Amino acid sequence: MKDPSLPKKIAVIGGDLRQLESAGAFAERGYLVSVYGLDVLPDTPFSPNLQKADTLKDALALADLVLLPLPYSYNGEKLNAPLSLKPIAVSELLAHLSRSQKIAAGLLGESLPDGFSVYDYAASEVFATKNARATVEGAIAIAIRESAITVCQSRAIVTGYGRIGKMLAKTLCDLGATVTVIARSSRDRAWAWAEGFDAYGFHALPELVANTDFLFNTVPGEVITREVIEHIRPDTTVIELASLPGGMDLRAADECGIRVISALGLPGKYSPKTAGRIIADCVFEAFGL
Amino acid sequence: MKDPSLPKKIAVIGGDLRQLESAGAFAERGYLVSVYGLDVLPDTPFSPNLQKADTLKDALALADLVLLPLPYSYNGEKLNAPLSLKPIAVSELLAHLSRSQKIAAGLLGESLPDGFSVYDYAASEVFATKNARATVEGAIAIAIRESAITVCQSRAIVTGYGRIGKMLAKTLCDLGATVTVIARSSRDRAWAWAEGFDAYGFHALPELVANTDFLFNTVPGEVITREVIEHIRPDTTVIELASLPGGMDLRAADECGIRVISALGLPGKYSPKTAGRIIADCVFEAFGL
Amino acid sequence: MKDPSLPKKIAVIGGDLRQLESAGAFAERGYLVSVYGLDVLPDTPFSPNLQKADTLKDALALADLVLLPLPYSYNGEKLNAPLSLKPIAVSELLAHLSRSQKIAAGLLGESLPDGFSVYDYAASEVFATKNARATVEGAIAIAIRESAITVCQSRAIVTGYGRIGKMLAKTLCDLGATVTVIARSSRDRAWAWAEGFDAYGFHALPELVANTDFLFNTVPGEVITREVIEHIRPDTTVIELASLPGGMDLRAADECGIRVISALGLPGKYSPKTAGRIIADCVFEAFGL
Amino acid sequence: MKDPSLPKKIAVIGGDLRQLESAGAFAERGYLVSVYGLDVLPDTPFSPNLQKADTLKDALALADLVLLPLPYSYNGEKLNAPLSLKPIAVSELLAHLSRSQKIAAGLLGESLPDGFSVYDYAASEVFATKNARATVEGAIAIAIRESAITVCQSRAIVTGYGRIGKMLAKTLCDLGATVTVIARSSRDRAWAWAEGFDAYGFHALPELVANTDFLFNTVPGEVITREVIEHIRPDTTVIELASLPGGMDLRAADECGIRVISALGLPGKYSPKTAGRIIADCVFEAFGL
Repeated sequence: MKDPSLPKKIAVIGGDLRQLESAGAFAERGYLVSVYGLDVLPDTPFSPNLQKADTLKDALALADLVLLPLPYSYNGEKLNAPLSLKPIAVSELLAHLSRSQKIAAGLLGESLPDGFSVYDYAASEVFATKNARATVEGAIAIAIRESAITVCQSRAIVTGYGRIGKMLAKTLCDLGATVTVIARSSRDRAWAWAEGFDAYGFHALPELVANTDFLFNTVPGEVITREVIEHIRPDTTVIELASLPGGMDLRAADECGIRVISALGLPGKYSPKTAGRIIADCVFEAFGL
Repeated sequence: MKDPSLPKKIAVIGGDLRQLESAGAFAERGYLVSVYGLDVLPDTPFSPNLQKADTLKDALALADLVLLPLPYSYNGEKLNAPLSLKPIAVSELLAHLSRSQKIAAGLLGESLPDGFSVYDYAASEVFATKNARATVEGAIAIAIRESAITVCQSRAIVTGYGRIGKMLAKTLCDLGATVTVIARSSRDRAWAWAEGFDAYGFHALPELVANTDFLFNTVPGEVITREVIEHIRPDTTVIELASLPGGMDLRAADECGIRVISALGLPGKYSPKTAGRIIADCVFEAFGL
Repeated sequence: MKDPSLPKKIAVIGGDLRQLESAGAFAERGYLVSVYGLDVLPDTPFSPNLQKADTLKDALALADLVLLPLPYSYNGEKLNAPLSLKPIAVSELLAHLSRSQKIAAGLLGESLPDGFSVYDYAASEVFATKNARATVEGAIAIAIRESAITVCQSRAIVTGYGRIGKMLAKTLCDLGATVTVIARSSRDRAWAWAEGFDAYGFHALPELVANTDFLFNTVPGEVITREVIEHIRPDTTVIELASLPGGMDLRAADECGIRVISALGLPGKYSPKTAGRIIADCVFEAFGL
Repeated sequence: MKDPSLPKKIAVIGGDLRQLESAGAFAERGYLVSVYGLDVLPDTPFSPNLQKADTLKDALALADLVLLPLPYSYNGEKLNAPLSLKPIAVSELLAHLSRSQKIAAGLLGESLPDGFSVYDYAASEVFATKNARATVEGAIAIAIRESAITVCQSRAIVTGYGRIGKMLAKTLCDLGATVTVIARSSRDRAWAWAEGFDAYGFHALPELVANTDFLFNTVPGEVITREVIEHIRPDTTVIELASLPGGMDLRAADECGIRVISALGLPGKYSPKTAGRIIADCVFEAFGL
């Protein structure tokens, strides 16, 4: 049933546990997978379908599709390959890549330097939505561990009501917290109402934070202002989920003695296998595999 | 604190229990409310703020804002006023309306015949989102009543994963059903995955319906085709939630002996007071009341 | 694997849709089932394993196990057989029953008049626990239908925290209500706390009912006293789930204009097939089928 | 309204963050509280009502009620006082205690050596039930952290369906897992059915564990036998919640390369403040405070 024009061989270069798991998912679907730069892995279930290549060149040879890390590179010079025994230069990678090869990478807004055509899996909605669940689980684990109280019978505020905000509010409620949602748009507040929550605009936040046990921010863009922070109790557990630079006035937090727990990259930290499967799902869908 | 340019007097003309409840909500906020065409109401809590007018003209006199029914009219001739002792002609209404009055009505795609400027509360996202919750509750009540089995331990399929689909799937799951979501877009299926559901495209539906106890359709546009219907078991409870003409091949259903329960207008039927409050919320927001 | 001493033939005499469904469950497990007194059933899926008997005597002949209705009889004279074309006298039934036959019946505290040994399926914990779920679903359907508001964003009180109270409180919460539990024992209140609810003793009820949209009673024994009822708002939806005589001072309710919705026998009314499967499950377990 | 015979002064001797929090709860209710052996606490919110005593004798002087640790002592010689700068001998404590003082302690089956009458708060049902929620939260945090996958879309088995089993199964389900309950009694399995779960006896466990991502044991008494363990996949996250010696054949686990995560004392570790409040609640109730 597979289209003969579809990739038969996939190379996975660099990355972390997630990309290794993606490699496993490709192999399970019947593709030949060669990996390079995923060395520090004692128990990897290599199989006839899934093999380590000795060199970058070998790994890429004949590959129809190449999976690159997330992010692809932190500095544009070296590939992001924390599990590789030796560094992999971006220039070397590009030298071996062919323009006829399909490339999937987590670009985070960057592009490959010389115009290779790349599918940015980290920019897809499927990626963001499925990872939101992993983020929420990580946030819950942090909330349980970092606070001295149970989530059950606590009061929690969630700022922002996009993917993560929606899932987080519902999960906190399922755990027995009383949840208040803060959202800018009346549409989001209507949705929060329909899920059973109290919902307010940001103007209500200074007053509301004074009486909360947990504050989760999901909004990038400074919404947890100094005025808000001045009202937070020192024993409130404050968790920042928005991507950098986040949504909190960290200087004000510091001055007010409010500890902000920065919780970034939770899918990779708390659920690397699921996160790797999600990347594979995105690639499957993007290339019709 | 109220802006002097804001409405002080509101007229509510025709409609059903919902508009009466909206009138109550207006009165609670301190507006003077006069109603006309809401007669068959033995126990209405009229108050100094909320009064019946003797004539349409009296009701409209000096009103800054006029609330009209949902839908405004079924035929363009008579106002939709099922609780009125006598019919109210649209022409008479228009004759007494002034172009300086703000009008809120449920137009359902129609417009007022002569270009009055109208806020269509039924077209707002807040209206749709909050009513989705009422729709889901009605659908649950119907599912419990019309099936001979418990929702708990049943298998349920929800087609479509917009507002109603999302809330319905979650609620069925909370009741103990095993829920499968059918959605066209990979984004919606990703969201369903993140809520813990199995999710498929419509191609999987014929096979899946053969093994389901409940089938809820939320998609307008014929997605429950003859092929699907031919696979439905006669004891499956089939509930149509999409607005007319719905998403089911009703002729095929009839020929296959599949009973389709049409469930429309559930907010007005099952939760008229909440639905009336929702209309008031939309009006409050639209006019900054 | 079946013990040769186990029943091979099962007779189902009288009863309603539930017993008919039990008969179907027996047949599915491979027993020969003969039914009598279940006549008004156009579409019953009779099969080689499941047959109507022409006479009571034929139905009982050679049966190892006999399933009787719930309750067995309302007056001790006639079998409870609402679907039978003609009445079935208890005396006639007893005349044809042999003491060597195993009997399962819903006795509700009664016993068979002359000392036949009977397994009372309605007295088993499995029966009560599984039916509690069906009761809760019926209660939810009634609450949605009988109130003019959504359960979502409402305030609900549940009195009693046994099987039904626990399941009902959780379900109302899942639907978006704010739930308060009233229970006598500190153990039950601790459990309610652990599920995220506010919990109080009955002394707090008069004050709390004044501010509730729904009141569900699950406690037999008059806990909803006149004092409580005097505090209930007329628009509160009051649902009595406790078995007769219930837990409410109905005279006080009548005098105060509070409508009490009596909700009894919900499993048989709302989920007869599931209720019939539950009876079969109890019989399977009791007799090691 | 307080009975003059009730304690006016409470001494809290030794213990950890929980007992310190209990002390705070006592002070909030208006009792004079003196603590001893809770030294390593930089930020303790001492107040006029809540003070550190310089000596054990001072702390106990005039106290009507004495709160002791959980457990009271690990060896019968020294009080359990991990936050004390110097050890507190049980003999010294007993020398200063008067038989007229009311004592509350977590005995865990032990008794005070010389027959003082003690209320064992750790033996109360309220204590066990409320702590079950804290245990479940800790278990969830561990499951999220220790596995490489999300709980959402995973398969989880919970063995035992008492307090912890019930709450844990429901919470896992809310997080999007497919949950199977293993319980000995048909009553517990009926309850699990009514919550929407699949439920089996222990005979089904060997087959079921082969296909699970998480296994949580709540049953003390060896139910996770060698036979079961031999079927567990190496990547399954196995969490032991039953008190020592637990329910797992640890030698078999070791031999099969199955890592068992021992998760004991979770309330004190993950939610010490809530756990301290729970102790205070039990004491309030036991002594009618």
